[in-house]
Amino acid sequence: MTQSIDKDRVLIFDTTLRDGEQSPGATMTHAEKLEIAGLLDEMGVDIIEAGFPIASEGDFNAVSEIARNAQNSVICGLARANIGDIDRCWEAVRHAKQPRIHTFIGTSPLHRAIPNLTMDEMAERIHETVTHARNLCDNVQWSPMDATRTEWDYLARVVEIAIKAGASTINIPDTVGYTAPVESADLIKRLIAEVPGAEDIIFATHCHNDLGMATANSLAAVAGGARQIECTINGLGERAGNTALEEVVMALKVRHDIMPWHTGVDATKIMNISRRVATVSGFPVQFNKAIVGKNAFAHESGIHQDGMLKNAETFEIMRPEDVGLTESNLVMGKHSGRAALRDKLGQLGYEVGDNQLKDIFVRFKELADRKKEVYDEDLIALMRAGEDAENDRLQIVSMKVVCGTGGPAEATIEMEVDGRDITETETGDGPVDATFKAIRKIHPNQAHLQLYQVHAVTEGTDAQATVSVRLEEDGMIATGQSANTDTVVASAKAYVNALNRLLVRRDKAGPGSDTREISYKDVS
Amino acid sequence: MTQSIDKDRVLIFDTTLRDGEQSPGATMTHAEKLEIAGLLDEMGVDIIEAGFPIASEGDFNAVSEIARNAQNSVICGLARANIGDIDRCWEAVRHAKQPRIHTFIGTSPLHRAIPNLTMDEMAERIHETVTHARNLCDNVQWSPMDATRTEWDYLARVVEIAIKAGASTINIPDTVGYTAPVESADLIKRLIAEVPGAEDIIFATHCHNDLGMATANSLAAVAGGARQIECTINGLGERAGNTALEEVVMALKVRHDIMPWHTGVDATKIMNISRRVATVSGFPVQFNKAIVGKNAFAHESGIHQDGMLKNAETFEIMRPEDVGLTESNLVMGKHSGRAALRDKLGQLGYEVGDNQLKDIFVRFKELADRKKEVYDEDLIALMRAGEDAENDRLQIVSMKVVCGTGGPAEATIEMEVDGRDITETETGDGPVDATFKAIRKIHPNQAHLQLYQVHAVTEGTDAQATVSVRLEEDGMIATGQSANTDTVVASAKAYVNALNRLLVRRDKAGPGSDTREISYKDVS
Repeated sequence: MTQSIDKDRVLIFDTTLRDGEQSPGATMTHAEKLEIAGLLDEMGVDIIEAGFPIASEGDFNAVSEIARNAQNSVICGLARANIGDIDRCWEAVRHAKQPRIHTFIGTSPLHRAIPNLTMDEMAERIHETVTHARNLCDNVQWSPMDATRTEWDYLARVVEIAIKAGASTINIPDTVGYTAPVESADLIKRLIAEVPGAEDIIFATHCHNDLGMATANSLAAVAGGARQIECTINGLGERAGNTALEEVVMALKVRHDIMPWHTGVDATKIMNISRRVATVSGFPVQFNKAIVGKNAFAHESGIHQDGMLKNAETFEIMRPEDVGLTESNLVMGKHSGRAALRDKLGQLGYEVGDNQLKDIFVRFKELADRKKEVYDEDLIALMRAGEDAENDRLQIVSMKVVCGTGGPAEATIEMEVDGRDITETETGDGPVDATFKAIRKIHPNQAHLQLYQVHAVTEGTDAQATVSVRLEEDGMIATGQSANTDTVVASAKAYVNALNRLLVRRDKAGPGSDTREISYKDVS
Repeated sequence: MTQSIDKDRVLIFDTTLRDGEQSPGATMTHAEKLEIAGLLDEMGVDIIEAGFPIASEGDFNAVSEIARNAQNSVICGLARANIGDIDRCWEAVRHAKQPRIHTFIGTSPLHRAIPNLTMDEMAERIHETVTHARNLCDNVQWSPMDATRTEWDYLARVVEIAIKAGASTINIPDTVGYTAPVESADLIKRLIAEVPGAEDIIFATHCHNDLGMATANSLAAVAGGARQIECTINGLGERAGNTALEEVVMALKVRHDIMPWHTGVDATKIMNISRRVATVSGFPVQFNKAIVGKNAFAHESGIHQDGMLKNAETFEIMRPEDVGLTESNLVMGKHSGRAALRDKLGQLGYEVGDNQLKDIFVRFKELADRKKEVYDEDLIALMRAGEDAENDRLQIVSMKVVCGTGGPAEATIEMEVDGRDITETETGDGPVDATFKAIRKIHPNQAHLQLYQVHAVTEGTDAQATVSVRLEEDGMIATGQSANTDTVVASAKAYVNALNRLLVRRDKAGPGSDTREISYKDVS
């Protein structure tokens, strides 16, 4: 990476695919990771933390492929403070035009206690691992995990060691979401002032939102001298999540008068990637989420509409189009042609080949027959629903469900399982229970349903519904999704989609293998 | 109100029922408002802003009844800067042991332009209206709306006028969510230092979360000398919402070391009221919402479980029980008795009379027959589903739905409409569309479906589903909810629930009346 010589430039380091993806239940498929990485690269994110290569074959492969594909972004992988992790990380990121190794160790008293290292032993370990990383890669980032709860003297000492060993970025994580803005600014300011060598490297801030202050803490760190913000789309992440990329980027734009720093992110790409991350992670964004919530710009709707002041600025500090939120368009009806569909999909960020277009066009026509008006959101849902379908081992062929207040619901499902046609009928408490039971009869499994939710894609009773299903089996979690105007059919397809993903994971892990991935919290 | 003589005490002013309730779609019924007010009072909120009495008969009645019921909280109503609003507000709040009138006017250049008042004319209006309010009530709060975008000199001038006219609380609203922590602290500090009389009154902070910094801005204002935080449960509110009560309360607890102020709020009541507000407003809380999100304390679940460090503190700065989050309990099965049910409901915050218990017990038994394990969440959903049912004009008697991939779905619905039994059959795109069409055939209406969503109440395929439906008709919005193990039945009941609420509103408004409520944004 060419470290910016512009003193007011703040680098955006996105960790949606690493810290975001490790939230329980937010696991993404390989294809989804590549897609999100592509969007991040395209929108001008400076550094993409693509994963934790030692964690599993899947993580390693995803980081490697993202590294190969990246056009402009630095591609970074995470490694604990040991040679094995760092070597594996380098093997994955080295394919990038601009690779980075990010290695870390927990430096607070609570974290030091776990590997049972003395302060001196840990300092020595930091020196060795950062040196090793730097021998492999010019661009090394080091993090003292739980920095905000680490004793000042020790923090300053280990930061200095990491700088001397060759780290070009020092990240100061508020791992537990504990800090407040004044502290956050002071900590960075003091590190820059007092640690020898600090003036030659970039300080990064990595905040969590446990007390609701991640955005303010990140911006305060920048005021204190940090020039890299670590964040995720939609604030995805464990517990209350990480700093939300969309919030820091827009705050720096809107309040440039008092925060005279800038990023390289194209904010008009925010809404699109926000929707994609919400969909693939299965973590919906709440209506009143800043910047990307459904209501974020919606104060003019509803009962106040007539009485609203005409001047939008009176109550609005950003325009919806600044973050890429455009009016939902009636894109086309049943007479629209294939070329028009391809154009529209291109505008929505989907480049499709001829074969894929053929398949999508058929499904688009089916939808246009059932639904008078086809909106952007419908096409996005359509694109999602089709994604993994072709090679899936389990497929729904047809189904019929009867339900109501008169007794148990009954579902008859016909499925293709590895090419074989099977039909079963089951009863259950409601249509969804009956449907899932019939599927389990056809394809016996122990998967536990952790999450089931349905959202209408657009308004109106003929809207498509997007169903998300999260299954857990033997410690593996998979989320499935489907969109259909029939919520019960969408439920069946989402459930089968999740089962297919579990099958892919199990195949990858191999028979008898330990399926548990390594966590960054496993002390190395 | 006895204004606190404890200099470190921060008053919590909750405006869930005023600023929160006016978010498009978050409208609550009279009964829901009373219930939420009761919970706020019980949890130690100092001031409850119960509504905007001039807005409608409904608002007036809600504020009046909340005022009569309040045990400990000050009850406040909102009024624009005119005699009519203030008189009406006083009529409603005067029933409280401790009433407060909150009057305001927009003081920024953009807001001054709308009533087309000169600075002097507006200053005179402020003097008159605050004086009038103070003649009615000892406890008067005044707000310069859009204070953070008001010229300093003018702000200082009008704040002084309001203090001299008798305001005992001056609230400084960041109406558009524009400010940043350092600014927020400085503004309050400067007002206290420079405005004559400032030392004798309480300054309040009222932030919006448009840039994701409402919590940090509120706490910074306290550092600057404010001693009242205006906030809402779950950060409910227009656009990105208001400051979240749960975040400021917990931040002050967790970081008492650097923020040595305290509130009177019992934090262990947070989860219960958060769930209730999410339910009655129809605004779900996202998984990664700080403090109250489903994942806020969930870092130990999922794939990292085995590898997790044993010491919870390592990654946790609060304990789930600090905010009243207890493990989901298997409360009882089908053999549990009525007394046990009443006890359990009491623990969940529902005090039920004998008649209500009888009704709930029947539905509990029905649920226990269908579902092996009945959890706290199931009982909460059950309580919700049963509300309003008795006097509803529209009721579902029975229904049968057939759906699947073989053609259009078909729904046959039997309903009681004002006591008359009607059955109709309709086909549609999926079971929900067919069901809603059949209901519209039975009870013709123009209501537009704005929102449809389904969430499983607990895990497992036999879980109950909670369906939320938001309808809009002639500018009126109503949200309906229902829980059932059958999502299609729950959808029908939620739709009918919303229709019943629209009927209640229409009846209240009366034939031919202008149904639009007055908004605080309507310039008076």
